[in-house]
Amino acid sequence: MPDPALAEAAGAAADAAAAVIRPLFRSPLLVEAKGDASPVTAADRGAERAMRALLAARFPAHGIVGEEYGADRPDAEWVWVLDPIDGTRAFVTGRPLFGSLIGLLHRGRPVLGLIDQPATGERWLGLDGEPTRFRAPLGGRVGCRPCARLAEAELSCTSPDMFAPADRPGFERLRAAARRVTWGGDCYGYGLLALGLVDVIAESTMKLWDWAALVPVVEGAGGRLTGWDGRPLTPERAEAEGGRVLAVGDAAMLDEAVRLLG
Amino acid sequence: MPDPALAEAAGAAADAAAAVIRPLFRSPLLVEAKGDASPVTAADRGAERAMRALLAARFPAHGIVGEEYGADRPDAEWVWVLDPIDGTRAFVTGRPLFGSLIGLLHRGRPVLGLIDQPATGERWLGLDGEPTRFRAPLGGRVGCRPCARLAEAELSCTSPDMFAPADRPGFERLRAAARRVTWGGDCYGYGLLALGLVDVIAESTMKLWDWAALVPVVEGAGGRLTGWDGRPLTPERAEAEGGRVLAVGDAAMLDEAVRLLG
Repeated sequence: MPDPALAEAAGAAADAAAAVIRPLFRSPLLVEAKGDASPVTAADRGAERAMRALLAARFPAHGIVGEEYGADRPDAEWVWVLDPIDGTRAFVTGRPLFGSLIGLLHRGRPVLGLIDQPATGERWLGLDGEPTRFRAPLGGRVGCRPCARLAEAELSCTSPDMFAPADRPGFERLRAAARRVTWGGDCYGYGLLALGLVDVIAESTMKLWDWAALVPVVEGAGGRLTGWDGRPLTPERAEAEGGRVLAVGDAAMLDEAVRLLG
Repeated sequence: MPDPALAEAAGAAADAAAAVIRPLFRSPLLVEAKGDASPVTAADRGAERAMRALLAARFPAHGIVGEEYGADRPDAEWVWVLDPIDGTRAFVTGRPLFGSLIGLLHRGRPVLGLIDQPATGERWLGLDGEPTRFRAPLGGRVGCRPCARLAEAELSCTSPDMFAPADRPGFERLRAAARRVTWGGDCYGYGLLALGLVDVIAESTMKLWDWAALVPVVEGAGGRLTGWDGRPLTPERAEAEGGRVLAVGDAAMLDEAVRLLG
């Protein structure tokens, strides 16, 4: 079990990010920008700076890797992994499902993950070896549901356009076998899987900061988060294999999903 | 301007629907059902019954058409059009973007439209000839933004799978010309267009209860909601033409969108 000070710091970092992001969500600045990325960049950068400052002050020996400001001490024993706005398109178009992601790697293995939803106030916190916690202003309870067969599964995916060409045939096989697919969601889909409302997610071209925080959230709810080959993700392997991520709520479905994706 | 009693009744009907729907959203019943539609059907039917009872008691001469219970007096001068849960897949998978839709037709023309989001507490109310009102717990302000060219436009669409085969090439041309597309949203996308965060939406296979409430909301925010031919929608024409709906925030973009879709 990670030191409680780590979870406390992750929560404080998420609060700091949300304080930057919330005033810009649906702001007149964003409406006027109309496709120009600058207000999003301002929210993204401001939120990451706030998180980095807080974490560096509390844990000066830790590394930090973030989407906006790159890597400080990426070879440290403990490395924080930050994505201030996961779901940029959702943010830009006013959908409240974008999230802030905070992961913590210990020797490359995700041991803490936090998904924060600044717009809805929802927050998932996963800690290695503990049940995932969930702040639930909109309802819902943590716990993946049993679903051993793809034919019964709700599949979720951010966008049909996110796949590298080589990954499309595998995804299409998975999709054809699943009961239904729902599009959209970014990190929110993984949160819903941890609530037993989605059964399987397959995505690709995911960067370290897109997936590191999701692992403890999903696994602390009883699910599995792996590569498309069914093996646990490591930063090196995920990068080498095109950021392919597979999440299942019921480990009994893993083999079928891996076979179709592969 | 419609009688204020009509808007008051629409609000009361939305409240009654939300009281049925909210306890079922992300409920253990829904988690356990895993694809079996019965809890959704219970929410859908219960909400529509609550709305019908309220509206029939207040306006006994009005007609009512609903997704679940069909048509009473569809030839009346005033006809309410109800969709208790627009976005069934969103509801089933725990996404808070599904909505309840209440429209009112006067001699076939939509003169009142209400989009209610039971999970987030947001509510849009459009009344013929008045600015759209918006209850905004997550922020945002009513008003479509200027965007005369598709090349600068945020396109929104519920799903790439929603189109009839004959409609796909037109949608693909539109999509190729737009700056970006974001998937997911159902009625929520039209609400975002009314907030100036989305510029264009094209969908098809929409039933009367999917689109009637959207017209006054979009037009009261300065936008246009038409068929793919750019003409105002009527119940007969929409049905005859496959439920093709086009919404633009800036009327100056209408011709370009119609040309590509056609």
